[in-house]
Amino acid sequence: MISATKVPDEVSGKFRESMRIAAASISLVTTVDEDGKYHGMAVTSAMSLSMEPPSMMVAINKSASIHPVIVRTGRFSLNMMAKVHTGLLESFSRSDLRDERFNKRHWGESAAGLPILVGAPAVHLCTVEETHDYGTHTVFFGCIEDVIMGSTASRCSPPLVWLNGALAPIA
Amino acid sequence: MISATKVPDEVSGKFRESMRIAAASISLVTTVDEDGKYHGMAVTSAMSLSMEPPSMMVAINKSASIHPVIVRTGRFSLNMMAKVHTGLLESFSRSDLRDERFNKRHWGESAAGLPILVGAPAVHLCTVEETHDYGTHTVFFGCIEDVIMGSTASRCSPPLVWLNGALAPIA
Repeated sequence: MISATKVPDEVSGKFRESMRIAAASISLVTTVDEDGKYHGMAVTSAMSLSMEPPSMMVAINKSASIHPVIVRTGRFSLNMMAKVHTGLLESFSRSDLRDERFNKRHWGESAAGLPILVGAPAVHLCTVEETHDYGTHTVFFGCIEDVIMGSTASRCSPPLVWLNGALAPIA
Repeated sequence: MISATKVPDEVSGKFRESMRIAAASISLVTTVDEDGKYHGMAVTSAMSLSMEPPSMMVAINKSASIHPVIVRTGRFSLNMMAKVHTGLLESFSRSDLRDERFNKRHWGESAAGLPILVGAPAVHLCTVEETHDYGTHTVFFGCIEDVIMGSTASRCSPPLVWLNGALAPIA
């Protein structure tokens, strides 16, 4: 249940400002629907949760088009992005580049059909075990079915980190 | 409910390895108990959740000493760490430096008594609205009561980001 107490606009404004200066790594959360069509979005809201069981969680706005697909299919992959994917991030951020998002040269597929980002440092294949709605978002708790580790070169590539409305340079 | 399906050890090992190469910003989650004593731990598991209401979530291992305190008091502060806090991070990571954690020169206090990290780019004062247990962890959903923004210099200081078992250099 969400508190009925209205948060002052001033606090909302400061919250928005504080989020700009927070650093967060970028992942592509992806899934495949009943017709085999891929869906995906770039998020900074994915993180590891528990080692036992190995699990990740990701918060997704209920208004996002991928939201009902994950609710229906109960599975998703979390693809860590590296420097090599900078151009791909742009396609996931601009609707006019939507058709470039799932270009075959960037994507492989798991045995169960989930998209796997080529060159990702790591990809987590998850089954939704639980969900928790809060405010505008749903948090999906995903049990990890498998982890696809990238090549040594992929793992050593700097991860994409978002900071101050831009990609942060990590040495 | 957690799946009874046992995750293979090989997957757990890969998951651990993949977490090493994930970049995550470091916060100090802190609270104050009924006797006015401060508690805190360094986490990479805090992130923004929803704008409406403004909210953050943080995942905390049930075995952490701060866990029952937050459950009891229902409030916590999330203190973003910047480069200037590198030494403080060490004290929050080493038990032999425990007494240095809440040295008065590093901490102020909110009207409600929550610790506020001096020089933090931003501090979020939260009230626990909901919790969700999963595996070894509890996720605390915190409604933001207030945001303490740091000085311009604090906001421009590079945030502390953890990567490959060390602090990542962000330009």
